Amino acid sequence: MSAPLAIAIDLGGTQLRAALVAGARVEARAAEPTDVAGGPEAVLAQMQRLIGAVSAGSPPEAIGGIGISAPGPLDSEAGVVLEIPTLPGWTDFPLRDRLAAATGLSVLLENDGISAAYGEWRHGAGRGLSHLVYATVSTGLGGGVIVDGRIMHGRRGMAGHIGHFTMAPDGPRCPCGTIGCFEAFASGSALGRRARAAAAAHPLSALGRAATTGAVDARHVVEAARAGDEVALALIDDEAALLGRGFASLVHLYSPERVVMGGGVSAAFDLMEETIHRVMRANLMAAFRDVVVVRAALAENAGLVGAAALVADRPAS
Amino acid sequence: MSAPLAIAIDLGGTQLRAALVAGARVEARAAEPTDVAGGPEAVLAQMQRLIGAVSAGSPPEAIGGIGISAPGPLDSEAGVVLEIPTLPGWTDFPLRDRLAAATGLSVLLENDGISAAYGEWRHGAGRGLSHLVYATVSTGLGGGVIVDGRIMHGRRGMAGHIGHFTMAPDGPRCPCGTIGCFEAFASGSALGRRARAAAAAHPLSALGRAATTGAVDARHVVEAARAGDEVALALIDDEAALLGRGFASLVHLYSPERVVMGGGVSAAFDLMEETIHRVMRANLMAAFRDVVVVRAALAENAGLVGAAALVADRPAS
Repeated sequence: MSAPLAIAIDLGGTQLRAALVAGARVEARAAEPTDVAGGPEAVLAQMQRLIGAVSAGSPPEAIGGIGISAPGPLDSEAGVVLEIPTLPGWTDFPLRDRLAAATGLSVLLENDGISAAYGEWRHGAGRGLSHLVYATVSTGLGGGVIVDGRIMHGRRGMAGHIGHFTMAPDGPRCPCGTIGCFEAFASGSALGRRARAAAAAHPLSALGRAATTGAVDARHVVEAARAGDEVALALIDDEAALLGRGFASLVHLYSPERVVMGGGVSAAFDLMEETIHRVMRANLMAAFRDVVVVRAALAENAGLVGAAALVADRPAS
Repeated sequence: MSAPLAIAIDLGGTQLRAALVAGARVEARAAEPTDVAGGPEAVLAQMQRLIGAVSAGSPPEAIGGIGISAPGPLDSEAGVVLEIPTLPGWTDFPLRDRLAAATGLSVLLENDGISAAYGEWRHGAGRGLSHLVYATVSTGLGGGVIVDGRIMHGRRGMAGHIGHFTMAPDGPRCPCGTIGCFEAFASGSALGRRARAAAAAHPLSALGRAATTGAVDARHVVEAARAGDEVALALIDDEAALLGRGFASLVHLYSPERVVMGGGVSAAFDLMEETIHRVMRANLMAAFRDVVVVRAALAENAGLVGAAALVADRPAS
């Protein structure tokens, strides 16, 4: 028997993506730049268009439903987007019920961190585990937690904001508004900020030269580090140490069997792995020291595969 | 129908306590100083003696079992104490099976933080909630998490080490071995340390005068603050700010409906409440800002009531 089909939507601040998914396999995909200016009504119309495109070849009765992966904070129980910092106008929008009414399909709305965590758990680097922290390190630092064989939801489905514990009493301001969060130190954006400072300080380094033709970001650091640039390697090592420290805290807090790291910065996982583990172990109590960090398996498909798996695994009602 | 009876044991670094418990009511209790030097075998004999004392008036068939609340790290699935920092010789000790063999009763072993969290959830300040963080602020800073209507256990039952996330890259060394944990800043021991420094700095304050007759600790701070001593009030306010900051992180991580604060330092809850909430809200994302902290209801009985409730609520096998 082949895996059941579901439609997955990934609502991002720049791209709106849809896919027809069977298990871990993306059968069809379509995407448009998110109509930011048009607000939720315009994006709802985009979603319907993309759903039509990816499901064109499939009989409606073969499709189990629609899973939406969206940035938070959102209320996954009520199916309502509470707010999306990167998308103005998305306040208290009942996305689940509006899309269900528009399509006639059952719809499920989940936090993008949780969707991706679920994807990695069911079909990726966390298969077969009961306890798992998924961390996506890119523009922000988000994720989701599987514990005791199920997704940790918490009140309004908002548990697992793993990037927002205070890691230092001062330091950079976090996009969430407070000071010194794990995200503010260790996200890809934070790495990019440090890279720009390092480029200015070391104008003859690979990063310094790259900075003469445009703004340097986390991607440039990874490329320059791969090419052996000392300044970039030091930045990567600092990033790994920050991640090791933050992951140690998460291991004490959630006691996972494994930490799965995804997001853009995980492209440098092989360069960071040793330092991540060394620093993590130095910060862990003995009973936790055998927990390891692995790279995510589904890359940028984790959210889509996860949202579809949530639909496929939903108990029949 | 009256609540079923269970025997609860609270294994502490100084006191070993046993109780016969029905619901939230302690029907009988007995205690001895923990035989630290005698190690696990001696303490096992103490447990049997105390169990005999509290169950003397009850027919064996009326007793549902024994619940043990013990410091961690321990493996609650396997019923094994992995290590107890305050009790030498307790390494990989199969306490559950040993006590079951000695008494003929079924035994359950749970982390003291989780036991107390469960007690407050079922019979205390968290009744009726689905999502709850319990924090006990005393010698250490521990606790337990209820999420999605159940205890969060994690791998080996070790989830919810809420005092051990890194709150600062430097600062005091934590008993867990690393630097700058929430516990290292905000436990009762940390408050006592600051109190001794303040007493030395302000010899004419109430704390300074108290210091001439013996070592000052958190208890003295609470007493002096109640008497209006400015130095003690400032210490309490600093403590409240540290707790507010740490609780904000925990709210982002677990999304509880409420934080329940117990432990010795919670004796000053009324003096700290306003600052805790002000600092917590300043550090929370908007969607989390309505979460409040309340004082625990079961005081020093939380662990006993919780361990007994775990026995009473255990699914029949």
